[in-house]
Amino acid sequence: MQYSYGELARRIEREIRQGHYPVGARLPSVRECASGHGVSVSTAIRCYRHLESQGLVEARSKSGIYVADWKSRRKPDVGDLAGARKPSRAAPPQYEQLMSLPHRMTELYALTAQTLSLGLHLAHVAPQWYPCQALSDIGQRLLRKDPMAIGAYPTGTGLPAFKASLINWLGACGVDLGEHDLLVTHGSTEALNVALRSVAQPGDAVIVESPVYFGLLQMIDNLGLRAVEVPCVPGAGISLEALEFALEHQHGVRAVVVSAVFQNPLGCAMSDRDKRRLLKLAEQHDVAVIEDDAFGDLSPAVERPQPIKAWDRNQRVIYCGSCSKSLAPAFRVGWVAGGRYHARIETLKLSNSLVAPLFEQAVLAEWLNSGAHLLHLRRLRERLALNLPLALDAVARHFPAGTRVVSASGGWWLWLALPDHVDTLALLKRAVAQGIAFAPGVVFSSSTKFVNHLRINTGRPWGRDMERGFETLGALVQSAPVRVS
Amino acid sequence: MQYSYGELARRIEREIRQGHYPVGARLPSVRECASGHGVSVSTAIRCYRHLESQGLVEARSKSGIYVADWKSRRKPDVGDLAGARKPSRAAPPQYEQLMSLPHRMTELYALTAQTLSLGLHLAHVAPQWYPCQALSDIGQRLLRKDPMAIGAYPTGTGLPAFKASLINWLGACGVDLGEHDLLVTHGSTEALNVALRSVAQPGDAVIVESPVYFGLLQMIDNLGLRAVEVPCVPGAGISLEALEFALEHQHGVRAVVVSAVFQNPLGCAMSDRDKRRLLKLAEQHDVAVIEDDAFGDLSPAVERPQPIKAWDRNQRVIYCGSCSKSLAPAFRVGWVAGGRYHARIETLKLSNSLVAPLFEQAVLAEWLNSGAHLLHLRRLRERLALNLPLALDAVARHFPAGTRVVSASGGWWLWLALPDHVDTLALLKRAVAQGIAFAPGVVFSSSTKFVNHLRINTGRPWGRDMERGFETLGALVQSAPVRVS
Repeated sequence: MQYSYGELARRIEREIRQGHYPVGARLPSVRECASGHGVSVSTAIRCYRHLESQGLVEARSKSGIYVADWKSRRKPDVGDLAGARKPSRAAPPQYEQLMSLPHRMTELYALTAQTLSLGLHLAHVAPQWYPCQALSDIGQRLLRKDPMAIGAYPTGTGLPAFKASLINWLGACGVDLGEHDLLVTHGSTEALNVALRSVAQPGDAVIVESPVYFGLLQMIDNLGLRAVEVPCVPGAGISLEALEFALEHQHGVRAVVVSAVFQNPLGCAMSDRDKRRLLKLAEQHDVAVIEDDAFGDLSPAVERPQPIKAWDRNQRVIYCGSCSKSLAPAFRVGWVAGGRYHARIETLKLSNSLVAPLFEQAVLAEWLNSGAHLLHLRRLRERLALNLPLALDAVARHFPAGTRVVSASGGWWLWLALPDHVDTLALLKRAVAQGIAFAPGVVFSSSTKFVNHLRINTGRPWGRDMERGFETLGALVQSAPVRVS
Repeated sequence: MQYSYGELARRIEREIRQGHYPVGARLPSVRECASGHGVSVSTAIRCYRHLESQGLVEARSKSGIYVADWKSRRKPDVGDLAGARKPSRAAPPQYEQLMSLPHRMTELYALTAQTLSLGLHLAHVAPQWYPCQALSDIGQRLLRKDPMAIGAYPTGTGLPAFKASLINWLGACGVDLGEHDLLVTHGSTEALNVALRSVAQPGDAVIVESPVYFGLLQMIDNLGLRAVEVPCVPGAGISLEALEFALEHQHGVRAVVVSAVFQNPLGCAMSDRDKRRLLKLAEQHDVAVIEDDAFGDLSPAVERPQPIKAWDRNQRVIYCGSCSKSLAPAFRVGWVAGGRYHARIETLKLSNSLVAPLFEQAVLAEWLNSGAHLLHLRRLRERLALNLPLALDAVARHFPAGTRVVSASGGWWLWLALPDHVDTLALLKRAVAQGIAFAPGVVFSSSTKFVNHLRINTGRPWGRDMERGFETLGALVQSAPVRVS
C-alpha cells in the first residue's frame, strides 16, 4: 500500500511519541525513509517537513534529521482563552501564498502564529480598549440567571432581544429595519458570504473597491465568482465614473460591494451625494449593492455618517455589519439586512450554519440597551485619534523620503505608499524575522498596483515598543533592495 | 437580453412590491409571461415557482397566477434570552413549503415559533438533561478569570486547548487526529457545508442516505448540487448494493454523505464490516466520504461504535461532528477533520465565517478535560432509554392498527410508518392546530416515499403532557382522511 505523506507522518509521529525514536535520536534519511516505506522521495520530504512544522523533528544541515525535544513544548493550559491569541501552530508562513487568491487571508492569519513582538498585520485594536470587563460582568450575570439557556436548541433568525436592540441602534444610524428584515450571522464574514451567494452564481462577476480587504477577494474566489476591481479616489471612496464604466462594459456583474462609511484599507468615506449616485447606478444596471459596514461605527467623523442602506428606497442594498471591530472581537457576531434578497439570504444562512450562538447575542443585547455603547465608541475613537500624530511622526522620522501616508484611517492603521522600488512582500519577510508583521500591499488587490504599499495597524497604546517597531521597519525600508520587476 | 428565471423573478418581484401588480391581481399566464419577456416557457414556470416559494404569488388551479397577500406579516414582540427558545416570529407556517427543497428546513424551524404545547418536530432533548449548570459555572469562572479574552481577535483553526481535548476524546472513539487535521466550525451544519464545497461543484451529485435529515437536502440544494438518495436497510444503514449501483450508474458523483453510527431519522448503525466495504467502494470510484457523526456519542450501544473515519487509511473521509446534540445545543460548536481535502476545507471555512467564538470553545475544553463527559453521556443515554418503552407503549395504545415503529432510535425519537392512506403533512396541520408538532415524512426525502411516515421527538421527561400528546395524535391519525394520490 502506498502511503500519503500525511499517513507516513502520522505513523512516524506515533513511533516518536511512543518512544521508538527517543528525543535526539537520528531518524532515517529522506532516501532511507522513502525506500523503507516504499514512497517517493518527495513524499518523504513532505512528511519530514510536516513533522518539523509540528516541532517533532529538526533537520540539522548536512548532519540529518533528528527527533526534536517535542515533550518540552508547552501545552496550552486548558480553558486558557489566551491560548487563542497565539495559536500553537507555528508552521513558517508561505509568503508566496499571500499572492494566491485562495490563500492570502489564510496565510496572513498564519502570521499571527509566528512569535512576533509586534503583530500589526490585522485590523484590530488592543483588547484593553474594548469594554471587556463590563461585557464579562453581563455574561457572568446571564449565565448565573439562566443556565438552562445553554441547553436550549436555538432556532429562528437571531435572539429577539438582541435583534430589537440592534434595530434601535441601526435606526439611530439612519437604517430603518423591522425584525423580519434582519438576520444575525457569524460575523460580517458570513454576512458577506450569504449576501454574495444570494445574488451571484459561480461565473458571475462582482465589483469591489480597489484596494480592498483581502478577505473579500479570497471569499469571492472561493465562491467561484470574479472580482472586478474598481479604483477608489483617496478620501472619496469608489470612483463612480469608473464604476459606471465597469457596469456598462463588464459582463455578468451581479453586485457592487462597498464600504461607504469607512473603507478598508483606505479609511475613506463616500459623500451622501455619491451614495445616492451609486444607488442610482445600481438601479439602472439592476445590480445589488452589498454594503460592508463593519467599521462604520468607528468613523472618525464627529457625526457617524449614514450607510448607503439609509437611502435604499428600492430594497436593493444588502447591509452587512459586525461587532467584531467596534465592541467584542471574540464574540464573532454580525448581521445582515438583505432587502429584496432577504428571503433567499435566510435560507442560505440557515443551511450555512443554522443560527448564531445565544450567549454572545444575549450579552450584546444587554450592553446595547445599557446605553454605554455610544460612550464606549467615543472613547475608542478618541484613543485612536490620539495615536494618529504619534504614528505619523514616527513615519516621518524613521521612513525614507518618498514614503507617502495615503491614509491614516482615524488612527486604526496607516496605509503607506513606500518608494516605488520597495517590494513590501519581500519587506515583510525581513520584518517578521525581526518580530514585526504588517499587511503587504499585494494582498489588497489581484493586481500588482500596490506592491510598494503596506497597511500597518496603529490601534494600540503608543509605547516604546511601537516607537522601536516603526524605527526598525523604517530601517528595513531604507535598506530595501531595489525591486526587479 | 435573455433573462434567467432568477432575473425575471427579481423583475416581477419588484413590480409586485412597487404595486404595479396589487395584491389579488392576476398575473400574465405562463405563456404570456414567456412570450412577453422572450424567455422559454420552462423559464417562466421556474420564475413563477420561485415567486410562489417566496409567498409573493399563488397559483390557483385552472384559474391562473395571482399576487398573494405578501404584505400581511404579523410583527411579533421583543423577547429575552428565554425568547430564544421560542422565537417571536409567528407567521403561520407554509406547510406546502415543507415539500420545497430550499425551504423545508426553514419552515420546519418556523414551526417552533407557533404556540405549541408539544413541539416534537426537532431532534433535541430537554434542556435539563444537559449539564447546563456545570457548563454555566465553568463559563462564569472563565469570564471572571480572563475577561480580556473578549477583546482578543481570534485567528487560527480553533482554540488550541479545545482542539487538544477534542483530539483526546476522538482518539478514544478510534479517530486518530493531529492538531492540523482538525478545524472548529459553527456546528456540524457549517462542517457539512464546507465539506460538500471542498469536493463538489454546482451541478455535481452527492449520494445521501434515504430517508435523511431534511437540513442536508436543503443544504445540497442551496449549494446547487444534486442529491442522489440511496435507500437504507432498517437497522443496517445505507444499502451497499444500492450504493454500488448508484456509483456505477450515476454521473458526476463526488461524495457519499453517511451517518454510520446513528442515522437520522432511522437511528441505525452500520456494521464495522460495512464501514470498510463502503470505504472500499469510495476508493474504487474515487469519491469522498462525508461522515456526519453529530449523533455518534449518543448511540444506544454499550460500546460507542467507531465512526468510518477510524478505518480511513487513505484520508478519504471528511469527518464532521458537533456538541449540539450531545452536550450544549446553544453553543453551536462543531468540527471537521477533512483528511486529504483538509487544506481546501480550511480556506473555505475561513472565508465562510472566519473562526468560531472563543468562549464556548474554552468552556468545552474545560468540560471535556474534567472527565465528566463520559458520565454525562451515560446518564443521557439512560434517560433516553427509559423513555423508550413508555413511548412504544403509548403508540401501541393510541395509534391505529397498521402503525409500524420502524425505528425507536434509543429513545431520541420514533420513526413511525402510519397506515398507507395517512398523509402526515396533512396530519401535521391538524396536529399543530392542537398544539402538537412532529416532522412529517416528506421532509426526509425528495421523493414521496415517506408520505405516511413521521419522526416524533421523545427526548424529554415522560409526563402526562407526552401521554396526552400521543393520545391526541393517535386520535388524529384514527380520523385521518383517506389520502388522494
